[in-house]
Amino acid sequence: MPTRRQFANAIRALSMDAVQKANSGHPGMPMGMADIAQVLWTDHLKHNPGNPEWADRDRFVLSNGHGSMLLYSVLHLTGYPLAIDDLASFRQFGSHTAGHPEVDRHLGIETTTGPLGQGLANAAGMALAEKLLAATFNRPGHEIVDHHTYVFLGDGCLMEGVSHEVCSLAGTLKLGKLVCFYDDNGISIDGEVHGWFTDDTPKRFEAYGWHVVPKVDGHDAAAIEAAIQAAKADPRPSLICCKTIIGWGSPNKQGTEATHGAPLGDAEIAATRAEIGWTAAPFVVPDDIRAGWDATAKGAAVEKTWQRRFADYRAAHPELAAEFERRQRGDTPADWRGKLQEYVAAQIEKPAAIATRSASQQVLNVLGAAIPEMLGGSADLTGSNNTNHKLSKSVGDPAEGGNYIHYGVREFGMCAIMNGIALHGGFIPYGGTFLVFSDYARNAARMAALMQQRVVLVFTHDSIGLGEDGPTHQPVEHVASLRLIPNMRVWRPCDTVETAVAWGDSIDNVKGPTSLILTRQALPPMPRTPAQVAAIARGGYVLIDSAGAPELVLIATGSEVALAAEAAQLLTAQGRRVRVVSMPSTSVFDAQDAAYRASVLPAGTKRVAIEAGSRESWWRYVGLDGAVVGMDSFGASAPARKLFEHFGFTAANVARVAAGRL
Amino acid sequence: MPTRRQFANAIRALSMDAVQKANSGHPGMPMGMADIAQVLWTDHLKHNPGNPEWADRDRFVLSNGHGSMLLYSVLHLTGYPLAIDDLASFRQFGSHTAGHPEVDRHLGIETTTGPLGQGLANAAGMALAEKLLAATFNRPGHEIVDHHTYVFLGDGCLMEGVSHEVCSLAGTLKLGKLVCFYDDNGISIDGEVHGWFTDDTPKRFEAYGWHVVPKVDGHDAAAIEAAIQAAKADPRPSLICCKTIIGWGSPNKQGTEATHGAPLGDAEIAATRAEIGWTAAPFVVPDDIRAGWDATAKGAAVEKTWQRRFADYRAAHPELAAEFERRQRGDTPADWRGKLQEYVAAQIEKPAAIATRSASQQVLNVLGAAIPEMLGGSADLTGSNNTNHKLSKSVGDPAEGGNYIHYGVREFGMCAIMNGIALHGGFIPYGGTFLVFSDYARNAARMAALMQQRVVLVFTHDSIGLGEDGPTHQPVEHVASLRLIPNMRVWRPCDTVETAVAWGDSIDNVKGPTSLILTRQALPPMPRTPAQVAAIARGGYVLIDSAGAPELVLIATGSEVALAAEAAQLLTAQGRRVRVVSMPSTSVFDAQDAAYRASVLPAGTKRVAIEAGSRESWWRYVGLDGAVVGMDSFGASAPARKLFEHFGFTAANVARVAAGRL
Repeated sequence: MPTRRQFANAIRALSMDAVQKANSGHPGMPMGMADIAQVLWTDHLKHNPGNPEWADRDRFVLSNGHGSMLLYSVLHLTGYPLAIDDLASFRQFGSHTAGHPEVDRHLGIETTTGPLGQGLANAAGMALAEKLLAATFNRPGHEIVDHHTYVFLGDGCLMEGVSHEVCSLAGTLKLGKLVCFYDDNGISIDGEVHGWFTDDTPKRFEAYGWHVVPKVDGHDAAAIEAAIQAAKADPRPSLICCKTIIGWGSPNKQGTEATHGAPLGDAEIAATRAEIGWTAAPFVVPDDIRAGWDATAKGAAVEKTWQRRFADYRAAHPELAAEFERRQRGDTPADWRGKLQEYVAAQIEKPAAIATRSASQQVLNVLGAAIPEMLGGSADLTGSNNTNHKLSKSVGDPAEGGNYIHYGVREFGMCAIMNGIALHGGFIPYGGTFLVFSDYARNAARMAALMQQRVVLVFTHDSIGLGEDGPTHQPVEHVASLRLIPNMRVWRPCDTVETAVAWGDSIDNVKGPTSLILTRQALPPMPRTPAQVAAIARGGYVLIDSAGAPELVLIATGSEVALAAEAAQLLTAQGRRVRVVSMPSTSVFDAQDAAYRASVLPAGTKRVAIEAGSRESWWRYVGLDGAVVGMDSFGASAPARKLFEHFGFTAANVARVAAGRL
Repeated sequence: MPTRRQFANAIRALSMDAVQKANSGHPGMPMGMADIAQVLWTDHLKHNPGNPEWADRDRFVLSNGHGSMLLYSVLHLTGYPLAIDDLASFRQFGSHTAGHPEVDRHLGIETTTGPLGQGLANAAGMALAEKLLAATFNRPGHEIVDHHTYVFLGDGCLMEGVSHEVCSLAGTLKLGKLVCFYDDNGISIDGEVHGWFTDDTPKRFEAYGWHVVPKVDGHDAAAIEAAIQAAKADPRPSLICCKTIIGWGSPNKQGTEATHGAPLGDAEIAATRAEIGWTAAPFVVPDDIRAGWDATAKGAAVEKTWQRRFADYRAAHPELAAEFERRQRGDTPADWRGKLQEYVAAQIEKPAAIATRSASQQVLNVLGAAIPEMLGGSADLTGSNNTNHKLSKSVGDPAEGGNYIHYGVREFGMCAIMNGIALHGGFIPYGGTFLVFSDYARNAARMAALMQQRVVLVFTHDSIGLGEDGPTHQPVEHVASLRLIPNMRVWRPCDTVETAVAWGDSIDNVKGPTSLILTRQALPPMPRTPAQVAAIARGGYVLIDSAGAPELVLIATGSEVALAAEAAQLLTAQGRRVRVVSMPSTSVFDAQDAAYRASVLPAGTKRVAIEAGSRESWWRYVGLDGAVVGMDSFGASAPARKLFEHFGFTAANVARVAAGRL
């Protein structure tokens, strides 16, 4: 039987070989954390390589994602469908082994990591989801949800601010099944970290209410084992601080930043092989090593035990079991669309001039009742974002359940945690903050888009229309900027009906995040025919048409739709043939067929777009001879009405600009 | 003589009155922190209301910027040019009293705050600048730089991740003159913070190596005084944790979130007046109170003492004194442009195909020698961003000087600290990270733009051209997204010469930040006439022209310029009249006169833009019948050459797209 060290050396050999072959990558971390991975994956991680999607598996997150070869190595070795050829095509186009791990549940990759700190945040979200799901579904004698979330992380993750946000909250929420291994190797890219990172990290985490195991020798399997045992026994989240040597085994480079992000080189790899006694050829794993790693039989057995437990659960609680399975599949309940339709019908019946953030709350009253997996929250702006609803129950101790998270003033943490919740499954997370502070969370929003996760971002106070709080709080570039993120769906509705459609689309959009852009101020309801109501879902549609073929199209979103309607009246009174197009979602509109798009924006018409923000989104629709009534500068602190006047968002100005194009 | 409490009540009265009159604002914080402000501003803050720009003044930063009325009140009371009428026009258009403080050195407002955590970060930058400036200019017996930076901050600042980044670094850098007052009132917008914020904050800051004064009664002047004394005596940065009551004095609302962000209402204001014994009418400050607050005489005296010291310094060290004054003015040395020209001439003489990040480093070798106030750094990517140069000296203990800061993996903290350095004066900060991680720092970049600060953001690895690290590290939307920020200048140079011009413009751009977008991969040098070299500074210019009037213009930036040139060759061979425009800075080009712009992009020409990123920046130039060769999706992990092919960035594809438009 090979030793633990020999098993760990398989990770080291595969990692240095793959990086060398790719001539690119990061061998230092996998070689440094290999011994920890060996103990965790062999003796603790509850998983089934034969069924990577098993609901009650432990989650493993590699937050220091540049060490991706560690993950690929253990997935390969334990029996996931990741072949040796996949490892040998590390970092090549179309391979399963990208430079940084990319979420792929079939392969056992739970999340996409690389942007530091966010894997840790995703993991906190997974641990929170586990605890809330357990509170919802477990019954006495039936612990069907009971798994850990393990995280590898490095100095970089701990320096990033998002680590503070999520670890502080994880401590408050007592996420006891979150177990993190800190790769304390003393090295970051610029060299030895003592010049820029001197935190007493154990003390910092104790301040968050965590259980900390300090000074574990990360190359001593017994010490690692003892730390994991202690972590699993403690009701608090755990940080196991592992002293490691980056690039362990490389005789001339270990312990230095030289091993971090570049191949070791053939000579040093040969020297390392000699040093660690690894005699197999590149990409060859000796049979006894392979056999010792193989977790397929053990994994099948452990899942089978759970399946038996779940069968018992189903017998005792058939409805709960069906509901659990539905939520695991990500299917929504059958009747929510009908309820939403009823809301829309009621709005058409009795139109009200309210803010779209208020409309959003009304919609949440409907959806929150119809879709129990909706898990809301706000970054300490609940009363402003209107993200709570009649059935909202604040999460205190998640063991007691709840469906609303007070994330605190932690925008980035909130969004990265929501990504983790979505990745875990069982919930549809949504969370709010002011639109301007989407900046703080921007990379997490990007990661949701890259990972194609259903996360709903509720961004209120969407323009200078928020008024007196001034330019620090007034978005200008943000709507345009969110639209730039590939796979990010953005809706900026103009009234209650469009808000309801936008929310419905957010739920249906299972392959990516949605940003809902909502006003602070009240907006008048727009009259629509049933066909127009149906057309909202196409992202852009004719709201008001001219008598006769239009010569001018005014395109607007959100709070500027009513303004466009007013301007159209002025222009019509001047004898102009003016159409008003409401375009709450440009990307949804762009995805319509060409004939529909041309029917909304006929060739040859002059176009003027109006949006209280950056002009940039609109040139593609208005062209060189069109115009955009928008903003090029920051806002100002004043009542909203004054600001709209000052920045030219008046019907008279829109009409003037438009007339100048005719 | 009124009591300290009575003096403090002036802040309370002015704040609640101004918020009430504006019918908008945040009375709770000013009423809660008034007693602290009274002690600090009366007995400790070194300042001269008669000369708010005095170089050696203490800096005061209101990081919980929503409490702006506290700042306006003390500025008014101590004698800054902020009249009672200004306070009465709180939050009105064009007033000096915006909803959140907006930097205005003439008024004593040191930075713009509101986005939580960033004021604290700015303050860390100011304290760092002070320490480095002292190391540079002080001489034995001549301590001409010797001032403190005081910060008010709240729970929100401490929940934000950026507080972790900057306080961790401030501890490492031993910024002993940074003194922070934590308004520990237990309340945030969602209510009592114990549901979402349970940090042991003193312990957390001790973990950062700070001096912490725990449990100070924020309404006990003697306790506050003692804490400030202790803070000033300690060589570490200090956090004074003040237990306060939000909205102190409001009999029915104090201690609750109801006082946070809304007027108290006339009845409650009357009740508060009775409770605190404030009998003066709204916006009236009794003479004895006013006299006690007035700091003009004391301020003039304290500055006079310093001026005498500076005169002695000038006598002993005339060149240093002149240099100090130059740097305080923000003037650059006379000869740097000449040195930069020499570099450009040498590049034209001996063109080299290198990455623009390498070109940037070569330019820094020139500028770093010519402009001693350049203060560089990187968020732990020095070797990748190439932000260091031959004369770079790492800052360890800032008391020992240095001109290069290892910010650690702290992008947001770095950028917000750079804002503070710029605001402090005496330095031109620049700092690097990968372009994709501009997301992490985005709101700090926005704040630099809003505050019009000269900060240079060095963003390398600017597209899929970074290759194997994959989509988490490959910017797609980032260049377009940075261009959206008002007042943000963006340069994406195509070779060494353009890189030099971009850097030169960054130094000359004293009224805002500049983003330099640089490649990881080598780019071929472009041949240019002297007139073309001169035209680079116009942001966009004709790099290659057609024989005869052009029918097609290819517009490109950075790594795609060479590609456009190749495509133009292909098209020319097909008999097309094709012009190539290099447009390294769209905003600089847009600021040129119409005749110049039309000379570069003649009316009636078809246009195709090429940029390895979002298409969105280019529709305004190419119009409805043009095309953009860009990206709509995320990148992938593979060698760069493969990715450029896959995503259509080949001369053949550009030529194909362009031919389709003719």
